[in-house]
Amino acid sequence: MVPEKDDKLILLTNDDGLYAAGLKTLLEVMEELGKVVLISTIESMSGMSQALTVKTPLRVKLLEENDRHRIYACNGTPTDSVKLAINQLLERPPDWIVSGINHGANASVSVLYSGTMAAAIEGCLYGISSVGFSLNNFSPAADFTVCKKYIRIVMKKLASEPLPPGICLNVNIPAAKKNEIKGIKICRQAKGNWKEEFEKRKDPMGKSYYWLTGVFRNHEPEAIDTDEWAISNNFVSVVPVTVDMTAHWYIDKLKVRFKK
Amino acid sequence: MVPEKDDKLILLTNDDGLYAAGLKTLLEVMEELGKVVLISTIESMSGMSQALTVKTPLRVKLLEENDRHRIYACNGTPTDSVKLAINQLLERPPDWIVSGINHGANASVSVLYSGTMAAAIEGCLYGISSVGFSLNNFSPAADFTVCKKYIRIVMKKLASEPLPPGICLNVNIPAAKKNEIKGIKICRQAKGNWKEEFEKRKDPMGKSYYWLTGVFRNHEPEAIDTDEWAISNNFVSVVPVTVDMTAHWYIDKLKVRFKK
Repeated sequence: MVPEKDDKLILLTNDDGLYAAGLKTLLEVMEELGKVVLISTIESMSGMSQALTVKTPLRVKLLEENDRHRIYACNGTPTDSVKLAINQLLERPPDWIVSGINHGANASVSVLYSGTMAAAIEGCLYGISSVGFSLNNFSPAADFTVCKKYIRIVMKKLASEPLPPGICLNVNIPAAKKNEIKGIKICRQAKGNWKEEFEKRKDPMGKSYYWLTGVFRNHEPEAIDTDEWAISNNFVSVVPVTVDMTAHWYIDKLKVRFKK
Repeated sequence: MVPEKDDKLILLTNDDGLYAAGLKTLLEVMEELGKVVLISTIESMSGMSQALTVKTPLRVKLLEENDRHRIYACNGTPTDSVKLAINQLLERPPDWIVSGINHGANASVSVLYSGTMAAAIEGCLYGISSVGFSLNNFSPAADFTVCKKYIRIVMKKLASEPLPPGICLNVNIPAAKKNEIKGIKICRQAKGNWKEEFEKRKDPMGKSYYWLTGVFRNHEPEAIDTDEWAISNNFVSVVPVTVDMTAHWYIDKLKVRFKK
């Protein structure tokens, strides 16, 4: 597949790896919209955040090519994959970068840890309209087809007008049946954090080790303008995510503190 | 070392590993202020962002203990280290979490990739006043002692009043001599991105691989309120960093786009 001048060129990735059901569903929708270059990993890269591979070489292999798509396997993080595709693999900058569909939600502070969202964040650093999609369902039997309708709506909005520089979208779809989903809600990221994060075990040699685990705590369950509220109430949440992590409102206060 | 009730308890980490010169300098300053628990890795964890170790067990080993500090080695990312310390290793929540001193600046969008800053971000998710320190000098011969004065000033501000929830500080110190540094400047994160990010090579078997590399491009070199401007002009930059990645200013505009 070589994209023609009039084709939309779409870069697709995820953090659950090449064999994830959510990726397959997202590829199906993207092939309705343009030519697709898919790049992902054999193993999952969940929780990799915006991590870069700096100490080991990156390898890329073209696995499959037809008239609708090319599929590459890469050994890097989702951020590496996006960078490699833009710098080395694509004929031209893509029109859109889409990531997902993640198995499990990426609402609230999960945006900080998510490899799925990191790929979208990396995309908008390159000035490309980018979206991460997640389904709030970890089950291997999760039904991703309910996502299709909302993915099409979001992509139609991007087609009509690109996103501003440095902003991408974080779209979370509730774990609900088609007819239970109430629509799309534009939201902000809920305040929250993770607690009780480790399980301590002994290995067969009697030595201690830890598994990362934990429970999410929503600090503002009553607030109805958050992504957490939306997906808990069967809405699709759409949060505009910025690459600018400055706490702008606190700058003047901090200036006062440092003048004292 | 067991912290007394009146001791300040300080959690210290970095992403350059236990043998980094910058870590040693930061430990020296922290021991002036309280009891220190240091946790880091043998190897460097640069560019690990907010990555979590979810697929392999975490191991922790107490390497050294005296009346001023305990030092642990961990095999996880900086974010894992902070989580492990708070959940499993510390007698009580620390008063401060400090990270660094990073070898090289973490200004502009580097905050998104930095393991050093991820540790501080993780700290403020736990409601603890947290700071990441970086020196804009990659040289192994870098002189970290120039940082001490500014680290003391920043810590004095934290001692007088904690940071608001969900905000940590990103402190970058210029690569300049003591008498050339003009003071502290409260800043915002500069707009920028990385370009030309790969070097393609052939391995001895003739197969291609890529090394991550790249050059930083400041999109707003004229703006004098950014961290990039500050460190280029021999100021110490202090940016308040928020865990809320919502582009709040764009929410209403996005609502209009989705109503059409």
